[in-house]
Amino acid sequence: MHILVTGASGMIGRKLVARLLEAGALGGRPIERLTLTDVVAPAKPQRFCGNVVSLAADISAPATAPALLAARPDVIFHLAAVVSGEAELDFDKGMRVNLDGSRALFEAVRMVGDGYRPRLVFTSSIAVFGAPFPETIGDDFHLTPLTSYGTQKAIVELLLADYTRRGFLDGIGIRLPTIVVRPGKPNKAASGFFSSIIREPLAGQEAVLPVSEDVRHWFASPRAAVEFLLHAAGLAGDRLGLRINLTMPGLTSTVGEEIAALARIAGADVVRHIRREPDAAIARIVAGWPQNFDARRATALGFRAETSFDEIIRAHIDDELGGRIGR
Amino acid sequence: MHILVTGASGMIGRKLVARLLEAGALGGRPIERLTLTDVVAPAKPQRFCGNVVSLAADISAPATAPALLAARPDVIFHLAAVVSGEAELDFDKGMRVNLDGSRALFEAVRMVGDGYRPRLVFTSSIAVFGAPFPETIGDDFHLTPLTSYGTQKAIVELLLADYTRRGFLDGIGIRLPTIVVRPGKPNKAASGFFSSIIREPLAGQEAVLPVSEDVRHWFASPRAAVEFLLHAAGLAGDRLGLRINLTMPGLTSTVGEEIAALARIAGADVVRHIRREPDAAIARIVAGWPQNFDARRATALGFRAETSFDEIIRAHIDDELGGRIGR
Repeated sequence: MHILVTGASGMIGRKLVARLLEAGALGGRPIERLTLTDVVAPAKPQRFCGNVVSLAADISAPATAPALLAARPDVIFHLAAVVSGEAELDFDKGMRVNLDGSRALFEAVRMVGDGYRPRLVFTSSIAVFGAPFPETIGDDFHLTPLTSYGTQKAIVELLLADYTRRGFLDGIGIRLPTIVVRPGKPNKAASGFFSSIIREPLAGQEAVLPVSEDVRHWFASPRAAVEFLLHAAGLAGDRLGLRINLTMPGLTSTVGEEIAALARIAGADVVRHIRREPDAAIARIVAGWPQNFDARRATALGFRAETSFDEIIRAHIDDELGGRIGR
Repeated sequence: MHILVTGASGMIGRKLVARLLEAGALGGRPIERLTLTDVVAPAKPQRFCGNVVSLAADISAPATAPALLAARPDVIFHLAAVVSGEAELDFDKGMRVNLDGSRALFEAVRMVGDGYRPRLVFTSSIAVFGAPFPETIGDDFHLTPLTSYGTQKAIVELLLADYTRRGFLDGIGIRLPTIVVRPGKPNKAASGFFSSIIREPLAGQEAVLPVSEDVRHWFASPRAAVEFLLHAAGLAGDRLGLRINLTMPGLTSTVGEEIAALARIAGADVVRHIRREPDAAIARIVAGWPQNFDARRATALGFRAETSFDEIIRAHIDDELGGRIGR
């Protein structure tokens, strides 16, 4: 089995590759070859005896996708994307990478021809939805992005569905919840505080909370995101039908519930590292984000996420902190 | 007022131009200049003392859109498209004209810059929706195209919304019902019979009905379509909000109801020109099409369509047959 991962240097990409190597197989077939690509060359994995190609490449450059497809990967995880904030600041770059890059990849698959029809797992996002919302967003709710990033993800979903319907590839799009707790440094993303109010206090550092505790949003852990990708790779196309883009299950939680879970797991002292510093701009952005989904189709298809914020925090402690809470 | 019409040689385009010339004004402002374009040069209108430019051009060719925008039209009616059947047969052509052509037009508007922000009316289609459906399709139903044409229209809707949100242009997308009665010769479109079973009998000619009389679909007349376009051109952007793509009102009718209306208006003899010749392939295609909408938002915004099939037939008799039923 040959697997291609675009965006392999990103947070989810690295975790996916590690998980693939750990398993050594996908859908019961041993992994013999990995092609990893990103704008910065992905680290070559240790302890893997198969063939690994690591490529620094711009997915939107004309030569990139055909080169990635030349060895006909069986499964493609297409994670490469300019993130939300950057796609909003640099419209042309977001369109070029997120839209044109994805289309170039799909088109390169089609151009291989000769019956080649790989499973292509595309990471979409709940950013395809924008307010106003019903109380719970069902699988039939329309695409109403309020960012260029969400627009690009929605467009790629539509392309993926049409390429799949026509038999050019075998696609599945998975709309990821907001992924928490992100490891690493705080970043400037408007959503950054959802992670940092857990991550920094657990590391004995101060975190800033720019919104009120009643702000509600939709979450899953990095570990759940990787499991979504693996499950999507193995899901039979005939179980999906033609509606191949799925809202992933997740967890609806308020910031207050997040903090209560942190207190339960790490104690009240840890929670004191959270400093309230209201930011009207961030509050306004977050107010347009979805709060709750009924991800019925994905759940029926066997996708699973955490059901409490405690689990999300424990996944972070296990996967990033070696099981121990640092002080 | 300078108006640009793409797809001006098409059935709706010609009727729109005729209607604009008849009115001499749009939104209370006199029309001084018309730019008409299509793959075949649109006929230069008679009896118009303003400046008319008629251009044969491929909207997807790189030089076309900037040239069309050079004189900064105030209102753009973007009707140019490869039709459904052709976009399904020739995937590349559909993508190039319907998607890349529209994007090139939007991008050319953006590149003018300098505060230029024209109203751009885009004709989308109910082909953005594909079965299975709820009994009535509301304004919040998701985009589920089952054709490449519908996919391309849905993508352009998303682009138009993002370009509008970012202030690059002032867009409105209107999802037209199936337009009946189309004037002219029968064509090979799967939807052709909806028109031909009215048009041909009224002209004393035989029409073939390939589906059963209980087939239900969603209709408006060419006259209503032109009124949608004019109303869309004048609608204040702040009444639309960010959800600028609207399902137009229409009329749900079965084929049997269509035929009953024809009998009421033209008599039982005329109806005898309809010959039943079931075609399983056409029946299968039509089974995936929407049957009924609740176009609440568009109705609240003042869009109006026919409310009986009798009205649709009378519009055809008035507009195409000079008010008389030929034998």
